Amino acid sequence: MIYLDHNATTPIAPEVAAGIQIFLQEEFGNPSSDYPLGQRAKAAVQQSRSQVAALLGAQPEEIVFLSGASEANNWVLKGVAHHLQQKGRHLITTVIEHPAVLNPCLFLMEEGWEVDFIKVDSQGRVDPDDVRRACKPQTVLISIMHANNETGAIQPLAEVGRFAREYGILFHTDAAQSVGKIPTIVDELGVDFLTVAGHKFYAPKGIGALYIRRGVVLTPLLHGASQEGGRRAGTENVIFANALGLACELARNRQPQDREHFLFLRDRLHRRLQEGYPDLVLNGPETARLPNTLNVSFPGLSGADILAGIPELAASTGAACHGPGVRLSHVLASMGVSREVGKGAVRLSVGRSTTAAEVDQAAALLLQRVQALSAVS
Amino acid sequence: MIYLDHNATTPIAPEVAAGIQIFLQEEFGNPSSDYPLGQRAKAAVQQSRSQVAALLGAQPEEIVFLSGASEANNWVLKGVAHHLQQKGRHLITTVIEHPAVLNPCLFLMEEGWEVDFIKVDSQGRVDPDDVRRACKPQTVLISIMHANNETGAIQPLAEVGRFAREYGILFHTDAAQSVGKIPTIVDELGVDFLTVAGHKFYAPKGIGALYIRRGVVLTPLLHGASQEGGRRAGTENVIFANALGLACELARNRQPQDREHFLFLRDRLHRRLQEGYPDLVLNGPETARLPNTLNVSFPGLSGADILAGIPELAASTGAACHGPGVRLSHVLASMGVSREVGKGAVRLSVGRSTTAAEVDQAAALLLQRVQALSAVS
Repeated sequence: MIYLDHNATTPIAPEVAAGIQIFLQEEFGNPSSDYPLGQRAKAAVQQSRSQVAALLGAQPEEIVFLSGASEANNWVLKGVAHHLQQKGRHLITTVIEHPAVLNPCLFLMEEGWEVDFIKVDSQGRVDPDDVRRACKPQTVLISIMHANNETGAIQPLAEVGRFAREYGILFHTDAAQSVGKIPTIVDELGVDFLTVAGHKFYAPKGIGALYIRRGVVLTPLLHGASQEGGRRAGTENVIFANALGLACELARNRQPQDREHFLFLRDRLHRRLQEGYPDLVLNGPETARLPNTLNVSFPGLSGADILAGIPELAASTGAACHGPGVRLSHVLASMGVSREVGKGAVRLSVGRSTTAAEVDQAAALLLQRVQALSAVS
Repeated sequence: MIYLDHNATTPIAPEVAAGIQIFLQEEFGNPSSDYPLGQRAKAAVQQSRSQVAALLGAQPEEIVFLSGASEANNWVLKGVAHHLQQKGRHLITTVIEHPAVLNPCLFLMEEGWEVDFIKVDSQGRVDPDDVRRACKPQTVLISIMHANNETGAIQPLAEVGRFAREYGILFHTDAAQSVGKIPTIVDELGVDFLTVAGHKFYAPKGIGALYIRRGVVLTPLLHGASQEGGRRAGTENVIFANALGLACELARNRQPQDREHFLFLRDRLHRRLQEGYPDLVLNGPETARLPNTLNVSFPGLSGADILAGIPELAASTGAACHGPGVRLSHVLASMGVSREVGKGAVRLSVGRSTTAAEVDQAAALLLQRVQALSAVS
């Protein structure tokens, strides 16, 4: 199998898998227990918290562990809306967010909140001025993803962060796709909340974190015992918190080399496909894009048909998180991509273990399949 | 270390730790992906769902995986309250619930809901007639734990279940402490919702499940993509869902032998302590009690002092989930236990790996320590 779907999920890094073995065996303590077994578990979670914080340029006490990006996004949107409802009931987000942002927004709308969904340009990027114009005295939160899962388009967060702070509006970014791939330093982005998803950068599925800027308060989503400083109840997922910490440390150490590796492979793949199929269309920005992500269309064909004929290649058509269906994705549709082009989209996302030989083979397989389909149609 | 704190958390069963290794390595697919790697992950989660369902006498589609008991309890309380608010805004629970039930109830009260907290008798048991008398036309949910974490007291759920159904009131049980220790067949208990916590019966911390009776609807806590039948968004925790499935299968196969083993050790420990300390007080019921749980008081002494002098023994004073402090626990206080007696409480909970030699040694260490403290005071 040639795995080019790292934006859907990554393998677990061998260093991460090895590092958590001890917690699967003897170190099984509950961090709330006073005896040494429990206190060692507590210390291990704290160390992991520091590792996550370091990758984000944050302080350990600004990091809360939770079950993943969906929980983090739900918490921020509902928790800020609830906590600040006296100030106002208006939120701003974008049309290209993940369902874990869009659907909590729809829920809040049913509950009486007003939400503005900012549009994107043909490259899938938000214009900060559009966001600024949507701000009102009643606005309590702006939520804009850092990088889009389908196109890899990186959003201009720093510009938004500047006026959000000036206006006194809290600012959240769902960085599920960017953490571990590009720098995600919270002060540079100017955010108050940042969502981390472990399984997008070599930690397991089922763990994530939320960065909460010091001093910022929101209503808990999970009430209960006093774990995570009283902000998120539930016995700590000691094993996966450690996995996330290890994955963050690994990403921090490898960022320059990962970036170079990703760019080299992604652009090589792009070049090969362009050479063999001159009508190829790039969906998303040329430069302001995740280094590992290539979303290209074979106009007139169907991405699903293309991939169905190459069982040895793992890749996506739309966003892998949301299952099958050949409907034009909401991301491509919002960019103004025509049905003809959008239907033929394939998302190819490389990772650490991807090789040049794999990329060349993937390109050859895709071109072969596309030519076969073109001959039929 | 003699580990007698299995109600705080258990080790991971070797069978469980071994069974998930494959998902830490090659089988890393996202269940939402269409290619074989993803579909195998989906099938594995489905198989785990069947294993959880089998332990509860439920159907697989009645099981939702989530991050643990705290999430499950928050979801049921807030999700039912929200979904049925047109019917009424009254809930019934008990004074001895875990904070993951009590605190969501307090939150709902701040939001305008009315909550009745039913008292318990001196053995820590609820009288079903008290629950029945609290029912009103506006009551939307009754939530009563199956077995108490501190005393092991088993609550008379079946009686409550009968009139709850008759009255058309949904019925939830937090079975975090009972699943895997005693039978938890949903139709016998008469519940519509049942909370499962993996780390209380040999699965890891960070995974749980909620049983939702077929046809029962509640508002999601996590909105987003369509995982778990649209009821709980977020990429599936494939590894720990599999761990929970394996732990459920193991518990189902071992239930008679586990029970016998637990009872033998627990009662042996109790006898040893009684013989050496005739003033020993049992906190909780003699018979309607989890087979592995022994909560005893050494009147006039402090449980924290006792355990502080026996570093080789891992046990709890109050409820280990909620950290240190010598305040009388809310559970013992609600049973009418005096300060004098309650302060001297120690919770000893045995598990699969506990041996008779360990129990004998624990009793000897406790008696030695208690005599030393008595001599001083």
